[in-house]
Amino acid sequence: MPYVNIKITKEGATADQKEQLIRGVTELLANVLGKNPQSTFVIIDEVDTDNWGIGGESVTIRRSRV
Amino acid sequence: MPYVNIKITKEGATADQKEQLIRGVTELLANVLGKNPQSTFVIIDEVDTDNWGIGGESVTIRRSRV
Amino acid sequence: MPYVNIKITKEGATADQKEQLIRGVTELLANVLGKNPQSTFVIIDEVDTDNWGIGGESVTIRRSRV
Amino acid sequence: MPYVNIKITKEGATADQKEQLIRGVTELLANVLGKNPQSTFVIIDEVDTDNWGIGGESVTIRRSRV
Amino acid sequence: MPYVNIKITKEGATADQKEQLIRGVTELLANVLGKNPQSTFVIIDEVDTDNWGIGGESVTIRRSRV
Amino acid sequence: MPYVNIKITKEGATADQKEQLIRGVTELLANVLGKNPQSTFVIIDEVDTDNWGIGGESVTIRRSRV
Repeated sequence: MPYVNIKITKEGATADQKEQLIRGVTELLANVLGKNPQSTFVIIDEVDTDNWGIGGESVTIRRSRV
Repeated sequence: MPYVNIKITKEGATADQKEQLIRGVTELLANVLGKNPQSTFVIIDEVDTDNWGIGGESVTIRRSRV
Repeated sequence: MPYVNIKITKEGATADQKEQLIRGVTELLANVLGKNPQSTFVIIDEVDTDNWGIGGESVTIRRSRV
Repeated sequence: MPYVNIKITKEGATADQKEQLIRGVTELLANVLGKNPQSTFVIIDEVDTDNWGIGGESVTIRRSRV
Repeated sequence: MPYVNIKITKEGATADQKEQLIRGVTELLANVLGKNPQSTFVIIDEVDTDNWGIGGESVTIRRSRV
Repeated sequence: MPYVNIKITKEGATADQKEQLIRGVTELLANVLGKNPQSTFVIIDEVDTDNWGIGGESVTIRRSRV
């Protein structure tokens, strides 16, 4: 009964892409560890780029310089 | 000083229901472990049904088939 | 299908007390929101007192002064 | 490669204040543990006051009494 | 720069199986969303069966009945 | 009443270094957002290098190649 939390920046992931993530990670846990998909939870958090930092600055600022 | 995080699907929980969850879990920790309610934190996350997967598909898709 | 994470300091909670927490919070979610216990996950993390801070110091230090 | 999650109540933190949090915690990890800022992640969650409990009640209710 | 947290019960997953989980979920995020593997973090938590509840009881108790 | 979770690899951080992290992040939240240190929680998780992945492999493997 695994629990998976995926955090990504909020930049337009579609419902279909999120389905692919949910299906893919559920299959991975079934294949590698024999976990039952019916009791595998996946929660996706989409985080505003102002609220995600890397290298000491937000992704918003980082992207603005490129 | 416990910390509790409750994740539920975003499907219209009312402010009153959320108060009941906060009060109930705080009392539970006081009753079972003697924890001080004044330093018990409870955070409720309401998650979009597109972003919550079980059985390898989102709750949105799962509900649409019923 | 709620997910609950309870973090407490690691100070000798017994298996029976942890059962009470699991049962209590599962019943709470069933009573308040009608959630199905069979798809309610509860994960308890017991955290070393060196690794839990409040008031700018660890619980280990805080307790040593009392 | 540290990962830091900061949860605060959603009460108008500005983008600039969030930059200060990201920069400050990244520098702290570099200074104390020598961690590389380029692989330090910081995620800030801003939580609705209805969804944050302390003392057995939400912050919304707690603030309304003051 | 995704962040993924996988929680499983502590029941003897090998280092090789954990490598497969890390590689698999990193490739999934690259394939579905074009995320850069070099800034994809995966953290696996192995949780004691006394500390994981489902259906209102711990996995330890649940397994003992089967 | 902020909540901060810091995850680092388990590689010998001392109790004193963990005190510095707790004090530093608590002061940061007081300075930037005026948060009360007495209701600021900090939890440090030290993660086994087998269980932390970056670039599609564990930190254990990554370090062994350097």
